[in-house]
Amino acid sequence: MESGRLVYLNGTFVPEKDAKISIFDSALMFGDMVFEMTRSFNKKQFKLREHLERLYAGLHILRIPINLTIEEMEEACYKTIEVNEPFFNENDEHRLMINVSRGPLGIYAPIFDNKMEPTVVIADFPLKWTVASMGVLFEKGINAVIPSQRAIPGTLLDPKIKNRSRVHYQMANIEVSNYKGENNWALLLDPDGYVAEGTGDNFFIVKNGTIITPEGRNILRGISRAYIFEIAKELNIPCVEKNIEPYDVYTADEAFMTGTPFSLLPVVSLNSELIRDGKRGKVTDMLIKKWSDNVGLDIEKQIIDYSKEVSDYKSNAPTPYQFKK
Amino acid sequence: MESGRLVYLNGTFVPEKDAKISIFDSALMFGDMVFEMTRSFNKKQFKLREHLERLYAGLHILRIPINLTIEEMEEACYKTIEVNEPFFNENDEHRLMINVSRGPLGIYAPIFDNKMEPTVVIADFPLKWTVASMGVLFEKGINAVIPSQRAIPGTLLDPKIKNRSRVHYQMANIEVSNYKGENNWALLLDPDGYVAEGTGDNFFIVKNGTIITPEGRNILRGISRAYIFEIAKELNIPCVEKNIEPYDVYTADEAFMTGTPFSLLPVVSLNSELIRDGKRGKVTDMLIKKWSDNVGLDIEKQIIDYSKEVSDYKSNAPTPYQFKK
Amino acid sequence: MESGRLVYLNGTFVPEKDAKISIFDSALMFGDMVFEMTRSFNKKQFKLREHLERLYAGLHILRIPINLTIEEMEEACYKTIEVNEPFFNENDEHRLMINVSRGPLGIYAPIFDNKMEPTVVIADFPLKWTVASMGVLFEKGINAVIPSQRAIPGTLLDPKIKNRSRVHYQMANIEVSNYKGENNWALLLDPDGYVAEGTGDNFFIVKNGTIITPEGRNILRGISRAYIFEIAKELNIPCVEKNIEPYDVYTADEAFMTGTPFSLLPVVSLNSELIRDGKRGKVTDMLIKKWSDNVGLDIEKQIIDYSKEVSDYKSNAPTPYQFKK
Amino acid sequence: MESGRLVYLNGTFVPEKDAKISIFDSALMFGDMVFEMTRSFNKKQFKLREHLERLYAGLHILRIPINLTIEEMEEACYKTIEVNEPFFNENDEHRLMINVSRGPLGIYAPIFDNKMEPTVVIADFPLKWTVASMGVLFEKGINAVIPSQRAIPGTLLDPKIKNRSRVHYQMANIEVSNYKGENNWALLLDPDGYVAEGTGDNFFIVKNGTIITPEGRNILRGISRAYIFEIAKELNIPCVEKNIEPYDVYTADEAFMTGTPFSLLPVVSLNSELIRDGKRGKVTDMLIKKWSDNVGLDIEKQIIDYSKEVSDYKSNAPTPYQFKK
Amino acid sequence: MESGRLVYLNGTFVPEKDAKISIFDSALMFGDMVFEMTRSFNKKQFKLREHLERLYAGLHILRIPINLTIEEMEEACYKTIEVNEPFFNENDEHRLMINVSRGPLGIYAPIFDNKMEPTVVIADFPLKWTVASMGVLFEKGINAVIPSQRAIPGTLLDPKIKNRSRVHYQMANIEVSNYKGENNWALLLDPDGYVAEGTGDNFFIVKNGTIITPEGRNILRGISRAYIFEIAKELNIPCVEKNIEPYDVYTADEAFMTGTPFSLLPVVSLNSELIRDGKRGKVTDMLIKKWSDNVGLDIEKQIIDYSKEVSDYKSNAPTPYQFKK
Amino acid sequence: MESGRLVYLNGTFVPEKDAKISIFDSALMFGDMVFEMTRSFNKKQFKLREHLERLYAGLHILRIPINLTIEEMEEACYKTIEVNEPFFNENDEHRLMINVSRGPLGIYAPIFDNKMEPTVVIADFPLKWTVASMGVLFEKGINAVIPSQRAIPGTLLDPKIKNRSRVHYQMANIEVSNYKGENNWALLLDPDGYVAEGTGDNFFIVKNGTIITPEGRNILRGISRAYIFEIAKELNIPCVEKNIEPYDVYTADEAFMTGTPFSLLPVVSLNSELIRDGKRGKVTDMLIKKWSDNVGLDIEKQIIDYSKEVSDYKSNAPTPYQFKK
Repeated sequence: MESGRLVYLNGTFVPEKDAKISIFDSALMFGDMVFEMTRSFNKKQFKLREHLERLYAGLHILRIPINLTIEEMEEACYKTIEVNEPFFNENDEHRLMINVSRGPLGIYAPIFDNKMEPTVVIADFPLKWTVASMGVLFEKGINAVIPSQRAIPGTLLDPKIKNRSRVHYQMANIEVSNYKGENNWALLLDPDGYVAEGTGDNFFIVKNGTIITPEGRNILRGISRAYIFEIAKELNIPCVEKNIEPYDVYTADEAFMTGTPFSLLPVVSLNSELIRDGKRGKVTDMLIKKWSDNVGLDIEKQIIDYSKEVSDYKSNAPTPYQFKK
Repeated sequence: MESGRLVYLNGTFVPEKDAKISIFDSALMFGDMVFEMTRSFNKKQFKLREHLERLYAGLHILRIPINLTIEEMEEACYKTIEVNEPFFNENDEHRLMINVSRGPLGIYAPIFDNKMEPTVVIADFPLKWTVASMGVLFEKGINAVIPSQRAIPGTLLDPKIKNRSRVHYQMANIEVSNYKGENNWALLLDPDGYVAEGTGDNFFIVKNGTIITPEGRNILRGISRAYIFEIAKELNIPCVEKNIEPYDVYTADEAFMTGTPFSLLPVVSLNSELIRDGKRGKVTDMLIKKWSDNVGLDIEKQIIDYSKEVSDYKSNAPTPYQFKK
Repeated sequence: MESGRLVYLNGTFVPEKDAKISIFDSALMFGDMVFEMTRSFNKKQFKLREHLERLYAGLHILRIPINLTIEEMEEACYKTIEVNEPFFNENDEHRLMINVSRGPLGIYAPIFDNKMEPTVVIADFPLKWTVASMGVLFEKGINAVIPSQRAIPGTLLDPKIKNRSRVHYQMANIEVSNYKGENNWALLLDPDGYVAEGTGDNFFIVKNGTIITPEGRNILRGISRAYIFEIAKELNIPCVEKNIEPYDVYTADEAFMTGTPFSLLPVVSLNSELIRDGKRGKVTDMLIKKWSDNVGLDIEKQIIDYSKEVSDYKSNAPTPYQFKK
Repeated sequence: MESGRLVYLNGTFVPEKDAKISIFDSALMFGDMVFEMTRSFNKKQFKLREHLERLYAGLHILRIPINLTIEEMEEACYKTIEVNEPFFNENDEHRLMINVSRGPLGIYAPIFDNKMEPTVVIADFPLKWTVASMGVLFEKGINAVIPSQRAIPGTLLDPKIKNRSRVHYQMANIEVSNYKGENNWALLLDPDGYVAEGTGDNFFIVKNGTIITPEGRNILRGISRAYIFEIAKELNIPCVEKNIEPYDVYTADEAFMTGTPFSLLPVVSLNSELIRDGKRGKVTDMLIKKWSDNVGLDIEKQIIDYSKEVSDYKSNAPTPYQFKK
Repeated sequence: MESGRLVYLNGTFVPEKDAKISIFDSALMFGDMVFEMTRSFNKKQFKLREHLERLYAGLHILRIPINLTIEEMEEACYKTIEVNEPFFNENDEHRLMINVSRGPLGIYAPIFDNKMEPTVVIADFPLKWTVASMGVLFEKGINAVIPSQRAIPGTLLDPKIKNRSRVHYQMANIEVSNYKGENNWALLLDPDGYVAEGTGDNFFIVKNGTIITPEGRNILRGISRAYIFEIAKELNIPCVEKNIEPYDVYTADEAFMTGTPFSLLPVVSLNSELIRDGKRGKVTDMLIKKWSDNVGLDIEKQIIDYSKEVSDYKSNAPTPYQFKK
Repeated sequence: MESGRLVYLNGTFVPEKDAKISIFDSALMFGDMVFEMTRSFNKKQFKLREHLERLYAGLHILRIPINLTIEEMEEACYKTIEVNEPFFNENDEHRLMINVSRGPLGIYAPIFDNKMEPTVVIADFPLKWTVASMGVLFEKGINAVIPSQRAIPGTLLDPKIKNRSRVHYQMANIEVSNYKGENNWALLLDPDGYVAEGTGDNFFIVKNGTIITPEGRNILRGISRAYIFEIAKELNIPCVEKNIEPYDVYTADEAFMTGTPFSLLPVVSLNSELIRDGKRGKVTDMLIKKWSDNVGLDIEKQIIDYSKEVSDYKSNAPTPYQFKK
């Protein structure tokens, strides 16, 4: 049974199931594709422009010769939402996935009748499927697990360009899937031993009333991460970038992770060792509340409601992937 | 005008143009796809089994739960060649591209009617398109250029697993495309400053009668690379693995690169500075001749013939990509 | 109930329970103590002299001014065995622990009536307590787990000096204790990503008929490790030192670990992913058999017998430590 | 002749001479012991609570399952002082050494009648013995010497956990003992070439009126170090953490080291090359004075007085150890 | 035809052509020479004292036993200008080159009649020759090119000591000379992948109204660099030190380089990819104007005028060197 | 009193005292000069051709456009010896110093009447002055001292190119001059902690009958070093390249250093700790004897004789430099 949802593909709309990219595309040949994933709050896209600016920075550095202006791209996003809204429930949020690749490699031009251009994809998927498994984490919190896999430093493969060459995140996820207990999320160190990021999220601690997050170096500089600085300012809580080591996490007062789909979630232990008392902290509470206020909906409640709704959703995996048994 | 060629896609054959992978596939989401590219000599696949064994090693390490045995995969390869042979010229060689990914991510299962399985693709493309631009290089030789981009060491993202997370190769290619002169191919150093590999080829020098290639560490351990060891043995030329630095290249007697489509090509300069007299060396000659003898065709002549045949082939780029002007 | 066993302590014998070192000793102040642990086969010490030579190399480099010659130390070892043999069962083996530290720090001289000298300890403990839990591993094999903790390179804290500053091994053990499944032993990578060693054992793979072990760099150069070279030679199996990466382990034919108490044990998986078919390999078999032949007892059977004997031994931990729950 | 002083040992008090730890304890087996050393000013413990908090952070990270609360530990410290005060002179200060280890390893349980628990030791020693040799340094200043031995970075063996695996400090001390001249103290660089710390002290420079100390990364974050920030604030002198290189030390206006026993001492040269004019600087003066005022005694005078008192104290070594001649 | 200009050489003045250093001097034997290059604005030396202080810091660290005080050196500089002014045009500026080496090596003493002393050289050259080729860059801007050659970190060869062991800058220049297009200047990364400096200039970006320059670590801490902080303060523009990566340059609003001869020049692209719109930015404008105002002449106009004057000056190379064709 | 000796300077001969290089030469501006130092045995140059080949390799890599062929350069060397022989004693050996730089920088062309060419210098100095202080070392041996200064790895500044950018060797020498005792020579580790080389010599150990020297990586590949391989072969002693760590030196049977002026000298201790019994070893003896036989003079005796002859030679410094007191 098809969902009815449509995906923007180089100017046309196709059914979700047919949203595919040629095996001769640089995206598949080299992992040479830049992307963004957004969400709405109450159907209203959050920081879409900031997402697109980051997308275009990546295209710039990878010399991908896109011929859409950022304004045209923005318009295409809104158009995609518009055509899909009929297939969304009232309480659904629009999670966009925007992909841009260099297009097919030159030698395969004849296959494409020599029509060679960048590949642009905009998909729109109900947020609930991504976050349903996370409802429990607002209460129980995440156990951050440091795998052996290190983050790749920016000088070798820049994580600040949100791109698809990231099988090392899968390697990290595989390791953590072998870890005892529940609610385990990978937290990668960089080769210098500093905390970098999760495999799809940024990390923060709170110590003596200050919010601290790793410097914007060997990480994706997340949009949600940037938003924490904004709301911390509104709340008059100091928020700084600083190198963080596991020692700092073990001795922190609070910790949390941020990501577009869930906004922010408490981290209550590191490698199964409790951070302070293992409870969600006060500053985390304040940030969730402030964020909720600013966007006009209760972030936590929405996700918990989704969890119930998706009663037939079986996987407990916090990030969705599948490994060999 | 379609070529008639067909691509194996999870058990069925589809026209080349329709050989696509879903945007929800882990291949696109994470660059999480293992692959091989092979070729035939006189229509006979070369070292296909070795390619498949390397493919399966990668699947093993990435925990991709493929349900084809290696024998079944081999059979699928031959079947693919069989269905495509009618669309190949008499002098064409079969260049296979074999891709295997983990398949769509879990949360997108409903889109696929919950039919979740690894994605297996086998394409078959005439070799000539890949190698046509290389005919001139047997004579003129490659100018190896060391870009600022370093090879990623195996401990961070293992190049020994031939996978699609390799946008850093594109970054290297972009740099080298800005370099003066012709016939420039990227030659990457690893972070320790040792020569690693090209962006699709292995590197060798000859010094005092010994063939030397970098240790099998921060490189793909190429099938052609391994074959050099075989034919060197047949020729009674010592061939060893050893750390190589730019100094060793500058002071070498000869240098060459190996890769599946072209077998081996001479390297005559480094960063535009001649290696010895800037001519193809004797050992290189012997290896080309021996390889040709072993496979029963003149490797060099075939590629030069292809170059003439593809008279309307316009690009001079040694590796096929396109960058923003 | 006391065991009756006695410990050599600076020339005198004291009951095991009273074998203690002053809190003012450099051993405790700086982890500044060199040590060896040996074993017997059929009551006969194995490679005792080699152990002592390594001990004295460490004393030399740490400038610990011991006044016993190596011959006197050897004699003290034999004397210790002699006084303890009455308290050993017939089937017990003598596991010696030899500790030498610099002695008390200078400012605490008055506490010791200014009698300042290195501290020399020789304890003798029945081997069975150490190996009882390992009987099952000859059949089931070890699952090697790579923790986030890296081996410290020799240039910072030389593991070739067998010394007591090694709390990082405990950190590695803690990580691995959180890993799912059984029979997990830590296998540390060094900071370059090469396989180094376990937290009390050396690592080997077998590939295409050759036994390979990491270069003697960021590891303890084990006495058992050296013995593998000896018996491999007797068996005409090539045995070499070479850098090993996880890729090499995943694609190996066999793997095993060596250590004084258990000689050698098969490793059947890495991070829970089977090595080949997950069975103990043929070369491993041959080595166990040859070693057994050479020392005149069935290594494997002895340990399995011990396992049954120690029926009340409760811990399943392969290495004996205790962590906070 | 015994001193009469007593040491707290797992709840009981024993004579100093008998304060020993079993050779089967994890403290000796793995250097697996966390510790603190404190001092009093006018018999009043200084920052005892901060020391204990750091101790407990270490226990937390090493998963040592202590069953004393921090309050009970504090009480035990005061009790230890109380029982020892009778044996202290009027002008003596109480230097506590607090050690906590995981206790004996599991397989040795029978030796201890299966009574397995962490080992807790609190010793109380007159400060004068530690500092007597330092009196001269307030005037002459320290010559900081950079040895070849590098500080171990936190990601390999975290110096922020004050633990006993630190034989590399002895290696550094050995090197510096071979250096010409007097008053040489080791100053370790980390592997990146930044100044880290001494082998028992933190390092500061003063430049253009600002006090600068290395970031709290590859160092112990000293209690005295933290106190400099406090008194600098009281004195309205800016005090910051920043990476320091030898260049910065050579071109500094002043330099000093801090440590619990001596509070702070001037550093007047680096590798025998004078810093500025080789005299103790003004900011150093102000800090010594302010510290003295705050604790109600003249820090410098007290130590110089001790130096005279300990007239029979022979060693000139600034840190107390002994090496082979 | 001789210029008439004279060079100060250990207290005497010699014709420019005869300003030479013995091949037995440590300057040539070891690249063991510290130096400074200054300039005047309207004949008035700029920051001469700061240059000399940096010179003396280098002499201090290299233990070069100069017997001139800094005041005497300053006087010698002014004397040199005085004797050369007659040979300078009215619009010429005085560019001083001050060299100090350890002098001849000991074993060559007899050659110098045992008169062994440091070598001190002060040359005075019209600035126009250095800057004539740069006039065009105020408008067109520099294309910064990242070569494969990395900056040497301070811990191995400290760039903060302005010394003559810098053939690696030539290696970088050689690489960049092979790059397509014009106005290419080398911009070196350090081994960690951070932007360091050019081969004779410091680098800045402007982002969101803040001026940012790399931390003063693996770079020469330029006098012009320091002056940017001064004038930024006067202009109320925040100016900070921070690690910069290529990503930050690609996404910057403006970029520029500073150096004594040209003060500052816009950078408009990185590796041929435009920074923003590829035009000189507003903050750069303001800094050039402010600097001009402060020194009382139009920096840009002066250099453009020089460019016209030196109509017979043929080389286009931004930095003056010559490589093999 | 002049020596009468003459120096070849770009085709002409000048008195030694006048052998100078312009301050505007790239040699002084960038340490951009390649060089060789040779010696004769019984007036016959040793391995001159090998020295020149290394020189030309360096010129090649630095793109220095020399217009002398290697044969012409060789001839110039012999011519230089010829003109100087009259001023040499009968027992004197000819130590050549050959320098080649890129010549004056472009902008200074007018000073040189636009006659711009590489600078070529050949000096000829009696060997005895260099080696006189070393006579004692054949008996007493060298104490190798590891300074904090690390060797610069080849990827940053290649020591395999014998060039003048090497002030870091002076930094190492300064450190070692502060070390207690006599006969201290610097032995540098590379940044990975492997033994690299001295500041003008290569290092070897002997272990279990095998001669071992560091791999030819972060070192100058010495001509004497290569000759050890030759004579070891003649003596049937295995000689290999391998990574060496301080541990290997401490536990070696013998050690020695090689260098052109002295051929080879025993190393008897490391950081003042004896290697074995602190005596020159048997293999060292054999190598000295074999080398002497091959060149037809007693290497050791010659240098000891020189030591007596140079009775007025005052310095004890093993390498000739002078530092500030």
